[in-house]
Amino acid sequence: KMLGRVLCTVLFVGAFPSPAEASQGHISVVLLGATGDLAKKYLWQGLFQLYMDQVSSGHSFTFHGAALAALEPGQRRMFDVLKKLSCPPDEAPNRCAVLKDQFLKLSQYHQLRTAENYTALSREIETLLRQEGLKEAGRIFYFSVPPFAYTEIARHINSSCRPPAGAWLRVVLEKPFGHDLQSAQQLAAELAGFFREEEMYRVDHYLGKQAVAHILPFRDQNRQFLDPIWNRHHVERVEVVLKETVDAKGRTSFYEQYGVIRDVLQNHLTEALMFLIMELPANVSSAQEVVQHKLQAFQSLWGLERSSAVLGQYQAYDSQVQEELQEARGYVSTTPTFAGVLIHSDSLRWEGVPFLLTSGKALDERVGYARVLFKNRAYCTQSGTLRDAGHSQCKPKQIIFHFGHGVLNTPAVLVSRNLFQPAMPKDSWKEAEARSDLHVFGQPLSDFHMYSPVKERDAYSVLISHIYHGRKDFFITTENLLASWAFWTPLLDSTSRLPPRLYPGGVENQHLLDFEMVSGGVAFSLAEPAELLNPGGQMPSDFRAIQSKFRQSPLVSAWAEDLISQLASDMEEAAARSVARSGQFHLALSGGSSPVVLFQRLARHHHGFPWQHTHVWLVDERCVPLTDSESNFLGLHRHLLQHVRVPYFNIHPMPVHLQRRLCVEEDRGAQLYAEDIVALVANASFDLVLLGVGTDGHTASLFPRSENGLEGAPTVVLTESPVKPHQRMSLSLPLINKARQVFVLVLGKGKHDITTLLSRVGHEPRKWPISGVSPSSGQLVWYVDYEALLG
Amino acid sequence: KMLGRVLCTVLFVGAFPSPAEASQGHISVVLLGATGDLAKKYLWQGLFQLYMDQVSSGHSFTFHGAALAALEPGQRRMFDVLKKLSCPPDEAPNRCAVLKDQFLKLSQYHQLRTAENYTALSREIETLLRQEGLKEAGRIFYFSVPPFAYTEIARHINSSCRPPAGAWLRVVLEKPFGHDLQSAQQLAAELAGFFREEEMYRVDHYLGKQAVAHILPFRDQNRQFLDPIWNRHHVERVEVVLKETVDAKGRTSFYEQYGVIRDVLQNHLTEALMFLIMELPANVSSAQEVVQHKLQAFQSLWGLERSSAVLGQYQAYDSQVQEELQEARGYVSTTPTFAGVLIHSDSLRWEGVPFLLTSGKALDERVGYARVLFKNRAYCTQSGTLRDAGHSQCKPKQIIFHFGHGVLNTPAVLVSRNLFQPAMPKDSWKEAEARSDLHVFGQPLSDFHMYSPVKERDAYSVLISHIYHGRKDFFITTENLLASWAFWTPLLDSTSRLPPRLYPGGVENQHLLDFEMVSGGVAFSLAEPAELLNPGGQMPSDFRAIQSKFRQSPLVSAWAEDLISQLASDMEEAAARSVARSGQFHLALSGGSSPVVLFQRLARHHHGFPWQHTHVWLVDERCVPLTDSESNFLGLHRHLLQHVRVPYFNIHPMPVHLQRRLCVEEDRGAQLYAEDIVALVANASFDLVLLGVGTDGHTASLFPRSENGLEGAPTVVLTESPVKPHQRMSLSLPLINKARQVFVLVLGKGKHDITTLLSRVGHEPRKWPISGVSPSSGQLVWYVDYEALLG
Repeated sequence: KMLGRVLCTVLFVGAFPSPAEASQGHISVVLLGATGDLAKKYLWQGLFQLYMDQVSSGHSFTFHGAALAALEPGQRRMFDVLKKLSCPPDEAPNRCAVLKDQFLKLSQYHQLRTAENYTALSREIETLLRQEGLKEAGRIFYFSVPPFAYTEIARHINSSCRPPAGAWLRVVLEKPFGHDLQSAQQLAAELAGFFREEEMYRVDHYLGKQAVAHILPFRDQNRQFLDPIWNRHHVERVEVVLKETVDAKGRTSFYEQYGVIRDVLQNHLTEALMFLIMELPANVSSAQEVVQHKLQAFQSLWGLERSSAVLGQYQAYDSQVQEELQEARGYVSTTPTFAGVLIHSDSLRWEGVPFLLTSGKALDERVGYARVLFKNRAYCTQSGTLRDAGHSQCKPKQIIFHFGHGVLNTPAVLVSRNLFQPAMPKDSWKEAEARSDLHVFGQPLSDFHMYSPVKERDAYSVLISHIYHGRKDFFITTENLLASWAFWTPLLDSTSRLPPRLYPGGVENQHLLDFEMVSGGVAFSLAEPAELLNPGGQMPSDFRAIQSKFRQSPLVSAWAEDLISQLASDMEEAAARSVARSGQFHLALSGGSSPVVLFQRLARHHHGFPWQHTHVWLVDERCVPLTDSESNFLGLHRHLLQHVRVPYFNIHPMPVHLQRRLCVEEDRGAQLYAEDIVALVANASFDLVLLGVGTDGHTASLFPRSENGLEGAPTVVLTESPVKPHQRMSLSLPLINKARQVFVLVLGKGKHDITTLLSRVGHEPRKWPISGVSPSSGQLVWYVDYEALLG
Repeated sequence: KMLGRVLCTVLFVGAFPSPAEASQGHISVVLLGATGDLAKKYLWQGLFQLYMDQVSSGHSFTFHGAALAALEPGQRRMFDVLKKLSCPPDEAPNRCAVLKDQFLKLSQYHQLRTAENYTALSREIETLLRQEGLKEAGRIFYFSVPPFAYTEIARHINSSCRPPAGAWLRVVLEKPFGHDLQSAQQLAAELAGFFREEEMYRVDHYLGKQAVAHILPFRDQNRQFLDPIWNRHHVERVEVVLKETVDAKGRTSFYEQYGVIRDVLQNHLTEALMFLIMELPANVSSAQEVVQHKLQAFQSLWGLERSSAVLGQYQAYDSQVQEELQEARGYVSTTPTFAGVLIHSDSLRWEGVPFLLTSGKALDERVGYARVLFKNRAYCTQSGTLRDAGHSQCKPKQIIFHFGHGVLNTPAVLVSRNLFQPAMPKDSWKEAEARSDLHVFGQPLSDFHMYSPVKERDAYSVLISHIYHGRKDFFITTENLLASWAFWTPLLDSTSRLPPRLYPGGVENQHLLDFEMVSGGVAFSLAEPAELLNPGGQMPSDFRAIQSKFRQSPLVSAWAEDLISQLASDMEEAAARSVARSGQFHLALSGGSSPVVLFQRLARHHHGFPWQHTHVWLVDERCVPLTDSESNFLGLHRHLLQHVRVPYFNIHPMPVHLQRRLCVEEDRGAQLYAEDIVALVANASFDLVLLGVGTDGHTASLFPRSENGLEGAPTVVLTESPVKPHQRMSLSLPLINKARQVFVLVLGKGKHDITTLLSRVGHEPRKWPISGVSPSSGQLVWYVDYEALLG
């Protein structure tokens, strides 16, 4: 009956829909957590805004606040919130007052605890609609509740509160969506049991911020200017930054579990970055195209390593945690409150362009922005004073999407005047007046075309409007979410044990948090001042490679990442020595998954590697075409060769594919390869052979009890693998043993048993081919990570 | 007898060599052009300085001024100059006065006009030395004369004035050394008829400027800081600049023949650039190593094209030329007085780093410098005001070798304080006091470690000292000179007909001479203001490609450079279309010399070319190993493939080398290639085939009256060439004619006859195989340059 009354009122006001117009149907909005902080601060206001905007849309609405509290106290608390809803400055006060009154009447509190509660809510909606003769358009459930409550609520909605056929269901989810890839996958799988993908709206409120939301439209509307310059030839760097002055005080129970990367970088800053770097869809208002292009952008990113980030923690954090979480005095948290992360894409568009994501608490200012800085491609012939006058091409050129706060204290889009005058939608963005007293990034505001929103809108009210319109591209799809976690999780794992740099907070930080790009990663610019050193933390030196012996040969051991880094350096050194000695470096590489990280490291960090003088050979190959995904060569090509400059002639894939057939004896592929080796490699003695070890003790493609290759002539052989693809080509043990150096790389827990076994057995190549590796006049070095060595 | 007197005086003074010390022998210095401008201004002073420095070295000296004038007036004029020699401020006035007196007595004038004059001079020297019982150490002949006099003088010296066996000869030559490669080669060949390479000292006085001369020692002494950053990963750009305020007034008779590139860039700025970019020799004081590394640096430079430079001419120049050279009023000079040139190296160290050389007259200031600007690799977390304080890593980082003048008004070496504190030789360079009122490149001087010479020395006196010490690395060797001309001549040729941009001169130039790097070249930033347009000059549009018909097919014709540029664009367009249609682009390329420039253009200017989706095939190949210098594939690899990212699998060299032997019928190479084509190229129809034409009308490796490939099946054939290497592999005409597009490129005067012939004959492939090119359902386009078309 309440609904009936309200609808009458609505109709009475006159400017509102006639029954015919209201035929779009009815929408029920259920706000779960109706009396929580987020609801109080943003969501109710957003719903009220929705109501004000859509009251004439032809839809009718009811709003249902829900929580665990009983009806009476819940209702009271909720209406305390609703009474404080404010009228936006651009709304006529009269109209707003009337609408607010209506909104209050359309709103109701429900205790939602049990399955029965949900069933009752559903019935209530149906009954009311039947009474009013309205058809149901859809239901929106907004989850403003802690993540542990998700599954239960989702189950209830799915089983007891779905709208009838023909009406849609939209559930709106708030972060956190897991805390790493695994937990996000688990949560996603659970939700998938209750909702279809198109029913879920995961909120990242940054996608509702006006400056973030305008990145794609801006790129679209300014294609003619941006097309020639939106690439590695013109862009020097991209920065996405959120600096806060507040610290985590009062929120440490949340913060201690998440830290700055999960809180800000994994979601907000990553999303903004994706809008900047993704290929621009032909139609930027197609949610499907946007989501798909964004996913492709994720695929193009280099994997993060520990050296991709610098982490910090403000000094007071530990004591705040001790106090708020009742931890012992000696408790030391490694949760970062500051992070600077370097990201690279290997797309042709962005290769080599650094993307820097930075966020932190207790910094010197509050500001958020995404900034594309262009290279200076000009030479200004006139001297200093003249050079700075006017719109010199030698002044910095940049495009800034200013999220808010900072000196500008407004969302804004800024484009350097020496770049171009952008096209901006006149109804939503207006040119801001140039305040000559303000500077951004060292330049006066007058150097920019600056635009700010005609009407500043809160992110949540923007997003609630998008939910209403079903604009899924403003929300995080499951694929998008998992792609982001897949990208960030390795960094979270590899840095979880590292002590962050301590910083005093505010302006006192000075240059302590400045960081620099060095050899493919980042590092703080200043050495850590001694007085700030964290005496309790594990220091990186704990992880440094240790040296010893394994099977009478030198052993290098460390955590995987350090081991790979050491191995790559040793390989570069071997290459440099060899080139100095003979002008060439003959390197034979194994396939498989272990060397992938090594190949990436060589490609990304070893710019001094003498590739121009290196010959790359294969240790073994599967009998598949070179372009088959099983091919060792394809892996080598993808992860190494396409990124470095080895001359075409110096690349020697194994000839497993001849006469359009695979490893046929009479095509003599193995002999041809052996002949090539004899012709090009002095004494058929490779400068370096890189091997791995299988759990069965195989190495190269030499398997236990193989008929070929374990003894006899130094040659190339066809062998049989116990696993598919069975046919292989491989260097023989005697050929491997002619090498000047052999490095064996063993990684991971899965290799612990064979590693232990190998440490005990002697020379028994027929049982364990790897035990037959023993260079006759060369050197053997084992690179075994802690997991393989220690289990 | 004069010499006897003088030697007595010398010995009498006491601080000077005893006869035993003087046993190093006697040096005769002959200054040809003793009363000319250069001699007056610098050379006599330099010789006096040499005498002051070396009077105790154990050598004795005589100085012989020579000119064409008769003895009496010549002598008078010369001593007028000598009397005005000044004492350097750091020399004790007493000692200097005594030494000046001695210097005058040791100096003599000679009229050198005829062979007899030279013979007489030689005899005179010998006689004097015999009388004094001195052995002869050597003779220095300093050519301060116009270039037309060189040959004559050189002949006389060689035939009549060489020192006796055991003593050395050093001839010092002043620029210009030719005005292009050909004239320089000719001059070098002439001189080589008279002097051995080690006897010639070609002066580039910039090598005597203290800041230029210190570039290599600086790089050597600061290896530990520079090694990690002296490369493309850290250097943003290198600038070498000489700006002058004066114009060419009074010198136009010289200037009109040379222009700014020959006057300043080809020599001074190039030499300074080479010191910056050459690989650092292990021993920087080894003249041989320095010269050799400098030559290698020349080899690494990309060839210059017309688009590599912007040229200007100050507005008053034309009228000055008309007045001074008595040219008609309508005379229009295209001699540039301003040039900005973009240079690239393809060495691994510098690939992608722009080197900008700039010089001009009538500019807003007088200054010369070489500047290495480093990339900003830092992110500074603190806000603007803090960011600029201290030695923030976000401030610009640069190293400047300041030649002189400018605001500093002294030679200097400046290193940003946020880079490192350089090691500098304390005896010759001192740290300069930070004058906070001065700014260089927008930064206060206090941001730099700045060093200036302990003792400022004139370039000529430095060089005269190096001649005395035999330091050939401070002079231009013949190889060095020819390498430099080989580098600059193509630009001089391709710009000689272009009207330079006119500029008013001085500060009024404003931004008119600012230029920018665009698509591999440079262009002025501002469009040319209409009122400055030169109405008489030939405009670039004269050279624009014209379109017409040739043999019933479309013809594109233009000067070679424009033609290549058009062809490259058309190829990129074809590639983009093909990738859009089928996801791939199958491109078959011809070898030979014509396409080299095309390949380079594609590699350097077409960053958007879809290489990742392109398959590269060969139209034909010589039966030589792929790494043989005759191999078409090697050329393609060098000029194109190694610079772009075509996946390994998409590169299809012809299998001319199988089973370690060349084009043996039973190895079935041609069939294999045909099978590959059928397997990978839809319908065996290439998307684009690029052909050339031989003077005999051959195309691909299909020669007149060939037994294979002119008709029959669309396949790959072995053919015989009339020229070595005789054996070839080639696509057959029927296979070529299956292509969707065929472009034929014809360049150069040498192709004029065949072009004319082809315009007249019909389809006669057995006589002229090219006449059989006629795609059955594809398009044929001819790209013929003006020289081939018009002769």
